Amino acid sequence: MVKIGVIGYGYWGPNLVRNFNNKNFSRVTLISDLSEQKLLKARATHDVETTNDFNTLINSEQVDAVVIATPVFSHFELGMAALNAGKHVLLEKPMASTSEECRLLIAKAEEKGLCLMVDHTFLYTGAVQKLKDLVKSGELGKLQYLDSTRINLGLLQPDINVLWDLAPHDLSILIHLFDEDPVSVQASGISHTSNGIENIAYMTVNYASDFIAHFNCSWTSPVKIRQMLVGGDNKMAVFNDMEPTEKIKVYDTGFEVKSDEDKRNILVDYRVGDIHIPKIEMKEALAGLAKDFCDSIIDPTRTPKSSSALGISVVKMLEAADTSLKEGGKAVNLFK
Amino acid sequence: MVKIGVIGYGYWGPNLVRNFNNKNFSRVTLISDLSEQKLLKARATHDVETTNDFNTLINSEQVDAVVIATPVFSHFELGMAALNAGKHVLLEKPMASTSEECRLLIAKAEEKGLCLMVDHTFLYTGAVQKLKDLVKSGELGKLQYLDSTRINLGLLQPDINVLWDLAPHDLSILIHLFDEDPVSVQASGISHTSNGIENIAYMTVNYASDFIAHFNCSWTSPVKIRQMLVGGDNKMAVFNDMEPTEKIKVYDTGFEVKSDEDKRNILVDYRVGDIHIPKIEMKEALAGLAKDFCDSIIDPTRTPKSSSALGISVVKMLEAADTSLKEGGKAVNLFK
Amino acid sequence: MVKIGVIGYGYWGPNLVRNFNNKNFSRVTLISDLSEQKLLKARATHDVETTNDFNTLINSEQVDAVVIATPVFSHFELGMAALNAGKHVLLEKPMASTSEECRLLIAKAEEKGLCLMVDHTFLYTGAVQKLKDLVKSGELGKLQYLDSTRINLGLLQPDINVLWDLAPHDLSILIHLFDEDPVSVQASGISHTSNGIENIAYMTVNYASDFIAHFNCSWTSPVKIRQMLVGGDNKMAVFNDMEPTEKIKVYDTGFEVKSDEDKRNILVDYRVGDIHIPKIEMKEALAGLAKDFCDSIIDPTRTPKSSSALGISVVKMLEAADTSLKEGGKAVNLFK
Amino acid sequence: MVKIGVIGYGYWGPNLVRNFNNKNFSRVTLISDLSEQKLLKARATHDVETTNDFNTLINSEQVDAVVIATPVFSHFELGMAALNAGKHVLLEKPMASTSEECRLLIAKAEEKGLCLMVDHTFLYTGAVQKLKDLVKSGELGKLQYLDSTRINLGLLQPDINVLWDLAPHDLSILIHLFDEDPVSVQASGISHTSNGIENIAYMTVNYASDFIAHFNCSWTSPVKIRQMLVGGDNKMAVFNDMEPTEKIKVYDTGFEVKSDEDKRNILVDYRVGDIHIPKIEMKEALAGLAKDFCDSIIDPTRTPKSSSALGISVVKMLEAADTSLKEGGKAVNLFK
Repeated sequence: MVKIGVIGYGYWGPNLVRNFNNKNFSRVTLISDLSEQKLLKARATHDVETTNDFNTLINSEQVDAVVIATPVFSHFELGMAALNAGKHVLLEKPMASTSEECRLLIAKAEEKGLCLMVDHTFLYTGAVQKLKDLVKSGELGKLQYLDSTRINLGLLQPDINVLWDLAPHDLSILIHLFDEDPVSVQASGISHTSNGIENIAYMTVNYASDFIAHFNCSWTSPVKIRQMLVGGDNKMAVFNDMEPTEKIKVYDTGFEVKSDEDKRNILVDYRVGDIHIPKIEMKEALAGLAKDFCDSIIDPTRTPKSSSALGISVVKMLEAADTSLKEGGKAVNLFK
Repeated sequence: MVKIGVIGYGYWGPNLVRNFNNKNFSRVTLISDLSEQKLLKARATHDVETTNDFNTLINSEQVDAVVIATPVFSHFELGMAALNAGKHVLLEKPMASTSEECRLLIAKAEEKGLCLMVDHTFLYTGAVQKLKDLVKSGELGKLQYLDSTRINLGLLQPDINVLWDLAPHDLSILIHLFDEDPVSVQASGISHTSNGIENIAYMTVNYASDFIAHFNCSWTSPVKIRQMLVGGDNKMAVFNDMEPTEKIKVYDTGFEVKSDEDKRNILVDYRVGDIHIPKIEMKEALAGLAKDFCDSIIDPTRTPKSSSALGISVVKMLEAADTSLKEGGKAVNLFK
Repeated sequence: MVKIGVIGYGYWGPNLVRNFNNKNFSRVTLISDLSEQKLLKARATHDVETTNDFNTLINSEQVDAVVIATPVFSHFELGMAALNAGKHVLLEKPMASTSEECRLLIAKAEEKGLCLMVDHTFLYTGAVQKLKDLVKSGELGKLQYLDSTRINLGLLQPDINVLWDLAPHDLSILIHLFDEDPVSVQASGISHTSNGIENIAYMTVNYASDFIAHFNCSWTSPVKIRQMLVGGDNKMAVFNDMEPTEKIKVYDTGFEVKSDEDKRNILVDYRVGDIHIPKIEMKEALAGLAKDFCDSIIDPTRTPKSSSALGISVVKMLEAADTSLKEGGKAVNLFK
Repeated sequence: MVKIGVIGYGYWGPNLVRNFNNKNFSRVTLISDLSEQKLLKARATHDVETTNDFNTLINSEQVDAVVIATPVFSHFELGMAALNAGKHVLLEKPMASTSEECRLLIAKAEEKGLCLMVDHTFLYTGAVQKLKDLVKSGELGKLQYLDSTRINLGLLQPDINVLWDLAPHDLSILIHLFDEDPVSVQASGISHTSNGIENIAYMTVNYASDFIAHFNCSWTSPVKIRQMLVGGDNKMAVFNDMEPTEKIKVYDTGFEVKSDEDKRNILVDYRVGDIHIPKIEMKEALAGLAKDFCDSIIDPTRTPKSSSALGISVVKMLEAADTSLKEGGKAVNLFK
């Protein structure tokens, strides 16, 4: 049993605690939060000790691994302290405020031989696993585009813009599904508040091959849309997360381009076929994440699905998007 | 009765002829096309004369006004010839291949005192008129964003990219609804064919005030989406053109931003209210366009809804998008 | 080429004329209607002769087969006259006002060796053909139920109730899909007008085997629903005719009943699987009907899909429903 | 604070306990169940005492009111015992196995001056309260029909048919919305199991005025539908319980019947107007029910919304439906 300490018992913390408190592979032994009221609630719900000092938690012998569910600006400091104390670390997404912070965390984890992972929960949903299967098996064919819309009425956050809040979900799925390293990122957006933090933003990720990814994020839409299109040259999958069960729809529709000698003459043959709605396994994604984390602690040769490498890639793209936003939307290169 | 000559009897021409052939204000007297077969079909359906020489049509005394429904590259030559021959002109959208061509056409029409109009049909639909009412009456409040997705399986065109094909619809609606001149345009996209012409593209239009417009266009999606969000600080309207009758949904939902002295502390109050689906008048949009054109011929002081000024604005934004696509997505200024 | 005469050029007549006027197997030579204006319209659209005397049409040597698209009360008289004149007959649905009339028409057609058919157009749609394939191939398994809802704002008719207007579509599909003879019919309903003719009605068709069919028909619903569930013990198909293309959805979901010795203990194992949306061929159903009629004229050994046997079965069930409505909803037996 | 004892801690019991355990008006003091494991779970979750003997609970001084959440066949015995012990009683729906049992329970409660109520939870949902408002305010006009479809894959129950399981929800809403006493009930259905208990059934409720109600219930549909149409002569409301938030849609569409002297000539004028989706208050229905029960205990002059009178009416209609099923669907009168 991996003994887990959880820092931060706000919105997401209780879900993490519930899933790490299982009978199979882990147990939450200690929870820390600055709010005494939240700790009271934690103790009322779980058989657990609490502290309002995260250092106590990080240095506790009752803790093998630290789960950090605090605002992103504190990830680096807390994560570094935990790694230095010899604890495995799971960070809430996004991994940290800058890619440099991510790089230092990764280096430290490697140095210490500890597991460092990021909570990109979506990767553990039945829907994303089905998408991965569709890509991996070659059913979609060669990937051509990923286009995601994630908009609704969201809490405007004072320190991060809408891309840092919403896009990590989509970016983690993008990296999970499409292996190639992106070349550049473009972004545009707007702030409707006086603090200049974008509440609506659009982001394009470009690749050397003929693949493109686009993200539409908004905190300001009364209509809630959670829709991702993943198009291949053979089939196309739509992931509509607002559907209670029919989340993935696979369109057996493609087109074949035939150009004759005159390059300008493009002949396109469309093929319209059946649509398939595969059964999606309904399971709690966080349970899969918790297991992946603990498995990767026990077996250090194992790379978890939501790895630190994936985590830093997400942050690099968000950083590039910020730069692009500041520089009028121009393509910002992603240096490896 | 305005006597109409129509050049081009391909995909859209027959619809134009049907709507200009009415008992109230206009009659189609002459049709020209290079294909004898199409002219045969025209004569079989309508009581009309035909010619395969557009010059004959342009110079015919049987023609007061020329409707040009040919590929965009020919709009300038044909439009100029018609204006020079003293005919009023309606051009299929987009108005011409470059804004310079548009400018010259507008100057010629002014010089000759002739009506020059562009066929942005959408402006005459019941749905767009309802959107205009919602904006004009102040019901939506101060406009904050317009976000449009127009994707499906489309015919890849050999000479123009997907923005020139699909975005004119949305850009014309944007200009119709939102009065302010845009400042810059950003675009990103990809070509999946060897000719390098984008079949998927994204476009952002920026403004001096805190309004933003975004367009997502694709010829490569098996899922057909025709959805536009028009958000104001009071209400938000969704225009879903795939709905047979319930095309407009108005969300009485908004948020009020309250920042205290510390600018970083943004407090947002959401208000979630009813949804309203106004009845949309079902009428043929082209009939309204035909009437607007003829009315504007008869009364030279009248500015048609789908004016040449609107037409050139659309082309300027498409030109800027092309430049942005070539220059890695950077914001391209729209000089007046 | 079969020479066709069409009686009745009202709502449906023009569609029939267009589909029988083809280059392959038939030609409309003569149209009759009581309204001179409608005949004028017919002559303007088609190269056809017209008459306002149906007797002239029935006895014309220019006519091999008569298509009767008049109100149902006139079907018997017109059909009988045409058969007596040696013409093949296609009757608009429902076949006639009573099953006795149907019986006499069938007897006359047999006596004369002529083709007698009913226009149950739905049987020729791609969607119903797909349903038939799903049943015939055994994919759905043993059929257990058919449940149809066909409601919207409809024109209240002065001489027939909502079941006679709307249910023939569903009943013809029922007979086409499920071979067994029904045992009895129950119906309930209500009239919201002073003439006592039901504008809302419900109808159940019972069978000796454990299959049941149910129909919900209304002229009084602002919501338009056209939905049919066809359930087998293996899979279930939903036919939603309001969907533009995705009309058929096949649910690979079933249940297996396991009763142990104590009959009251029913154990049910549910199996929830994928959903499949087969591609439906988009074609004009009336073209298929026209071809079936002409083929059956040319080859007298052939039984058309929408046969007179199917036509009389539909009328028998409607008659039984009327009786049930009058007798408080009790099950009315269908004697063969 | 009303002290509540709960008998039955199975599927629904925990929800009842959670809602009666509040800080405002009631507290659960005692829970009884035959399963020791369930009682263990109850004690782990709540600060409550438990017993496996319902008699202990019924006679406990710690209990003012008994909530009975056991299978329907036991409602009468348990309810009677509780009333005889001087306790107020809330019965899970349906109230009892027969209307005679309901009658005896009501008589006993009256004799003892105790509150007797049935848990028709739906009456306390925001959606049904909105429907009630629409009826009461006259917005829908004179009610003409109620048509409900409640189908999905459900657990086939060994002792009651699908109507007794699913229809109580709809029947309670019907009675709540429409005041008139029904005249008769018709039903049809089928059993796909060897025990002869209907898993699919249809039910019509007839009235002296021109109102009709129809119910379509199934445990055998892979498609889950929860849809109710409530039509008035002014507007029509659709209640779609599968929608997460937009549950009620009000169609401002109606028709006016104008008959001229000849009664057969019905002229109908349709009016198609806007659609309105009112905001529904999202609240836990059971909390409202718990409060209504406690309020009615404290104030004996108060009639709760989900009264015993409503409860017996539901059972009378179900009984009549059973009789109709046995007698071939004929209309079974509901004697008062």
